[in-house]
Parts: sequence; structure tokens; C-alpha cells
Amino acid sequence: MKSILIRNILLNGKNTHIRIEGNRFSEIGDSADRQPADTVIDGEGKAIISPFYNGHTHAAMTLLRGYADDMPLFEWLHNHIWVAEAKITPRDVYAGSRLAILEMIKSGTVFFSDMYWDIEETIRAAEEMGIRAAIGVTFMDRLGEEKIRRNFEFLRQWESSELVRLTVAPHAIYTVNKTLLAQCAEIARELNLVLHIHLSETEQEVRDCVSAHGTTPVRWLDSIGVLGANVVAAHAIHVDDEEIAILKERGVTLVHNPASNMKLSSGCFRTKEMLQSGCRIALGTDGCSSNNNLDMRESMKFASLLAKCSYSPETLTVQEIYQWATVNGAEAFGLNAGTIAEGKLADALLIDLNNERLVPGYHLLSDWVYAADSRCIDTVICNGRILMQNGRVENGEEIIFEARKVCEKWR
Amino acid sequence: MKSILIRNILLNGKNTHIRIEGNRFSEIGDSADRQPADTVIDGEGKAIISPFYNGHTHAAMTLLRGYADDMPLFEWLHNHIWVAEAKITPRDVYAGSRLAILEMIKSGTVFFSDMYWDIEETIRAAEEMGIRAAIGVTFMDRLGEEKIRRNFEFLRQWESSELVRLTVAPHAIYTVNKTLLAQCAEIARELNLVLHIHLSETEQEVRDCVSAHGTTPVRWLDSIGVLGANVVAAHAIHVDDEEIAILKERGVTLVHNPASNMKLSSGCFRTKEMLQSGCRIALGTDGCSSNNNLDMRESMKFASLLAKCSYSPETLTVQEIYQWATVNGAEAFGLNAGTIAEGKLADALLIDLNNERLVPGYHLLSDWVYAADSRCIDTVICNGRILMQNGRVENGEEIIFEARKVCEKWR
Repeated sequence: MKSILIRNILLNGKNTHIRIEGNRFSEIGDSADRQPADTVIDGEGKAIISPFYNGHTHAAMTLLRGYADDMPLFEWLHNHIWVAEAKITPRDVYAGSRLAILEMIKSGTVFFSDMYWDIEETIRAAEEMGIRAAIGVTFMDRLGEEKIRRNFEFLRQWESSELVRLTVAPHAIYTVNKTLLAQCAEIARELNLVLHIHLSETEQEVRDCVSAHGTTPVRWLDSIGVLGANVVAAHAIHVDDEEIAILKERGVTLVHNPASNMKLSSGCFRTKEMLQSGCRIALGTDGCSSNNNLDMRESMKFASLLAKCSYSPETLTVQEIYQWATVNGAEAFGLNAGTIAEGKLADALLIDLNNERLVPGYHLLSDWVYAADSRCIDTVICNGRILMQNGRVENGEEIIFEARKVCEKWR
Repeated sequence: MKSILIRNILLNGKNTHIRIEGNRFSEIGDSADRQPADTVIDGEGKAIISPFYNGHTHAAMTLLRGYADDMPLFEWLHNHIWVAEAKITPRDVYAGSRLAILEMIKSGTVFFSDMYWDIEETIRAAEEMGIRAAIGVTFMDRLGEEKIRRNFEFLRQWESSELVRLTVAPHAIYTVNKTLLAQCAEIARELNLVLHIHLSETEQEVRDCVSAHGTTPVRWLDSIGVLGANVVAAHAIHVDDEEIAILKERGVTLVHNPASNMKLSSGCFRTKEMLQSGCRIALGTDGCSSNNNLDMRESMKFASLLAKCSYSPETLTVQEIYQWATVNGAEAFGLNAGTIAEGKLADALLIDLNNERLVPGYHLLSDWVYAADSRCIDTVICNGRILMQNGRVENGEEIIFEARKVCEKWR
């Protein structure tokens, strides 16, 4: 079991030593440096904080970053994104996932919840690069019976690793029929997996649901028994007060994706009402075709400022949004992580306190949410392994070279 | 006259050579490398773009970054910001301005329009660090007759340098009386200076103006002859259609500060109507007590996504917001800059195309606005002088040390 000792590091405003044994924080305090360690890090001038847990993304879509922007939703999706996506191969998904993971590590993210295709390729990329992931096995009616059958088989036979687990991911209520939704809910409960779904993202989705089923999306899903404490719903913008109460009652986790919602003009997340309801809320970036980056720090600022703009300056404090972006995301996916404490999974960022954006430095969390950028991150640790040190990630150049190469067909 | 030759650099999608003689781009094209130069930069793997021109900030307020957040406006201003500001000395303003300029250079800004106190200190900091600035001589009734007289004297006797010019800066209509506003307008016209003012930032300001003067802020300023092509108005949020038409008619430049407006819950800039009106619009960060950084790249994304969220996904394209943040800001302050072209002032950023956020790289401007962060900036050139290369700025450590020291009294 490998050990890491971080000496003289700032944790919650106090200087201390931190010891990692294997993949856990084993000791925090003055005596943590009594024994030698395989790796010793000098924490002088740095602070340790929790890294990010990205609640909703489509990693491989980094391949379409900047491919189409600034146009109406229908045109963007039908004439550009779907046309381009039709050409994506498994090799592309691998290259795109690696590019995404490189960006995530560099911006301080150690976990992502994904929903896409050719998921073996994204799993391989995550395992190789040492990042945590919850990879959705995506269901849509249009896959056809045979592929759907194989998806269920895949879910049953797959074994979680230390880093990667699967989620059951029915895409949305407008792409998955009632029977299949119920089957997804059933297998998720049976296998104790998270069910990851897009929910109430647009007004259109709500209107269509009312037309088809005579009720709104949250009520519809609840009526067929899908909602439960294992459900993670991305977006949840167009929900009324009673639907918020239902989501809270069922223990559903909501993932707010502020940059994507704003860029696509989807609507405004009801931050104040959601906070009052006591629902667990996590933060996501969504994919690179609608954001166009995977920067959770930036998304914290977007979430917080959008909430202030919609309600008042005291809505969504730095403590609250930091919790959404860290421990809430981790816990929604069953990870005992997201805070720096003995016994927790050893995920951490070392932040360079000598970066000008963290000066004068009255409140580290305020500076982290509102002022920082990825240049402030010196070291990224995931599961007791150093993924970035001094801003360097292994194989970065090769990953970028390969991603450019597979994208030649879209130029 | 010093010369710089940048070889094999990407400019507007094409590979070329760029020659700088003194403070101008003297030649762009295949033959620009025929003669030797004092400094040669290898542009391989980089693109050259215009740096940022920050239309509205309060540089020294970096000292109060993160000092107070997430509270109602009145409490924030009266119980925290003003109390802290009462302790600021000229030495602090110098230290705070240097910290601000360090952050600006690192995030690609080569010009800022400032409004604060002890302006000799900010001028000195800008000159020493080689950045352009338009420094406001701030007027408020509460300064008293003697200080106001000295301000006018200072404006008359001061001579612009290559980098720094002054602006006449009556703070706002609620802090400056009618006579003094008219005097400010007069001296600005006489000395051919920009008049920089906060305008229609909050609903309160509009209500108070209507109570006091029987009309709204833009109409009030217009009625006393203040508005003209030399006026740069920060915020301009709470304006009606007729006021927008007046601003256009008078040739006023508006500075949009999206992060500050959102964080303080001030209201939403009327992006669509402003664009339709044909008004010149520039971009600003506002000060660090209300943003809390000086990152113009981040502010471009905030402006664009806020506009999309308020209107539709096609509102405020990357071309438009990039123009606000560059050439519009430069031109509003009389600078022949903001584009990379022969004869223009030699201000430039060299962007690292091998940064993962700029990959695959279909549209550099889209990646720059939506995906990048300051880590993508390799080199910053201002007025033909290299201020940052390989991400390094001279004296960075000392500036940070000094800024921390003067802030001890606020801890």
C-alpha cells in the first residue's frame, strides 16, 4: 500500500500534515509526519481542498467543442450536432474521452458522471488515466430490441472497479417509452445502481409530456415508479413547486448545469426554491458542445452569479455552491469522498496560494469560487494517486495529438 | 526603436510573420521576416489575437477581493466595503494597483479604465509595469471645494504619456450635483478627454433621480448637456427604449459589466436592444470587490451566456462579444488598437494552441470566448513591449508579497 505525506499544508485555515495510505486519508494532524512515506509533498504556500465531482457530462463530446455555437436550438441540434455525431466511431470516443479527462484533471475534477455511446472506450480512458467515473449505459427506444437486450446484459455482467462504476441511463422521457423506463428503474434498484436521466430541461419537453401523458415530467416519472433515492436527474429546470416536493420526497439528486442551460437558453434553475426544499443538489458542466468546457470552478461561479441575478445577492453562498460541486456530487454517486477528513477517499487539490487571484486571501473559498482559475491548481490527487503535479499531466501532448487527428473528418 | 519579429504565427486562420517596430505593427506577411529584429519569437503552435481593453474597473480594490460576499447590497456596502475603504492609504493604492495589473497582464488585458482615489499611485503602477490605462480623476460632492479645485487643476496641468491618459470621472448622478456635473462635462470637452461615469446601475438610482429631478438618469444627464461622444457610461442597465435612442444619438459608449451586475443583483443589461440600437458597447470587469477578479475572458463568457439566457441562443455571438472586449474598448478611449493590423498599436496575445481547451480547434474565437482560461495565454505584448512570456511576469512575487503586507490591517 503506497503512502503519501503532505507536510505543512493549509487545511480549513490551519497548518497541518496529512497522510494518505493507499486510497484513504489515514491521518491528519501534527503527528501525521512521524513515519516515513513513499512520497513526500511540501505543502508550504499551498492549501488542500476537495476536488470536483462533475454530476453530468458527455465526455467524448469534447470532439465537438466549438463545432457550432450561437444558433437556435433546433438548427444547432438537427443541422450540426446530430449530423456530426453520426460520424463518431469507438476510436473517436476513446480519443475524445481522453481529451475530456485531461481537461478535467487540469481543472481539478476527479470524478464525472457520463452519458454517451461506446462506453467501453470511456471506461478504458478513465481507468488508464486514473480518474473516477460513473458511466451511463444509455437507453433510447431507437436503439432497437437487440441493443437494448445487450445493454441489460452488460449491466448484469459488469463488475465495478475501484474507479469506475456504471449507471443505468435512460436518456429522457421523450426518447424512452414507459415500459423501458420501468425496466431501467427495476434493474437499477436490483443492481443497486444510480439511474441517470435528463429531466425537465426545456419547456418543449414539459409541453410534449403533458400532450402525451396528461401530466408533467416529474409527475409522469413518479407515476410509473422511476423516482427514488438512486435517481440523479440532470437539469430539472421546468418544475413547479409540487414537483420539487415530489423530488425531495423521493430523495432524487438534481444536477444543475448553469453554463449549458444559459448557453442553450433552456431556462433558469430554481435555485432558491430547490435550496429551501432540502433536495440534494450537485453541479455539472454538461458536454462540451453546449458549455464549451468542463471547468467546474467556472461552473460554480456561473451557478452562484445566475442565482444572485435571478433572486438576490445572498442567494447561493460560496459554502453552498462548493458543497454542490464537491461532497454532494460524490455522495450522489455513493462515494465516501468530497471532504478532506480521516477515512475519506484520498481525493484532493493542492492550491497555489501564491497565485495572484488568491491574494490578499481573506476567505479561500470565496477566492476559489469567484476569483480563481485553473492556473491556481498545482496538484491533483485521486484515489491516493497523484494525477497532476506542478500543473503537469502524463501523456498530455499525445492525447491532444490524437484528438486532433480523429477530428480531421469534421473540418 | 526596438523591433520584434514573430515568425510562423497563426493570424485569422493563416500562418504568417509579424513585425513590430517601436510601438506599432509595421509589417504583416511573408516578407516581414526579411530583416533581422532585436527580438525574435517563434510563433509555431501559437495564434496571435488582440488582447483585452477593460472598460470599467477600480484596480486598487483587489485589496478587498473576497472581503465580503453573498450579502444584501446595503449591508455589503455600508457595513463592509465603505468601512474597509476608509483605511486605504496611498501606499495601499499603489500595492493594490500593482496586484491588479499583475492579474490583468496574466489574463491578457493591456488597458484598463479606472475610477478610484490617490490616482498618482495607480498611474505610477501602470507606467512602471508597462500597461495602458485611462485613469479617472474622480469627482464627488463630498470631496469639498478645495479638493475639487485641485482636481480641476490636476486635469489641466497633467500631460498624457504614451501609456497613461486621464479621464474626467464624476462618480454618478447621486453623488455629484448638477453644477459639478456640468463643469466636468465642460472640462472634458475642453481638454478632449473621456468623461467616465456610473449610470443607471440600480433601480434605486432611477427612482431617486425621478424623485429629485422629475426624470430618469439618461434624460437628466442629457438635459444638462453632459452626454456626448466622449462619454463612457458604466452599467446602463435600467434604461428604457427612448433612453437607449438618446445614448445612441449622443454617441455615448456603454460598458457592460456582467459579472458585477449579476453578483450584486443589479439587473440585466439589455443586450439585444443595445445591439439593435447600434450603440458602441465595451466590456468591463468592474472592481474586485464585486466580481471578484479582473478576467476579461471570463467576463466575455458571462456576457454572452447572460444574453443567451435572457433572450435566445443566437444573441451576442462570439464575434460580437470579442469586439466589445477588444476594439470597442480601445476605440472608446481613443486608442488606435484592438486589432492585429499594420499601423495599429502593437498590443497582442500569443495563445498556446496546444492547450487542451483549444482542441480540436474548429473556431479559435469560439474556443477563446467559451472554453479557454488564462492558462492558454503564453505571451502578452503591450505597446511593442513584452510584458509576459511563457506565463511569467517580472516582479510577480514581490508584488504579491507587498499586497499581502498592506492588507494585514483588514484581517
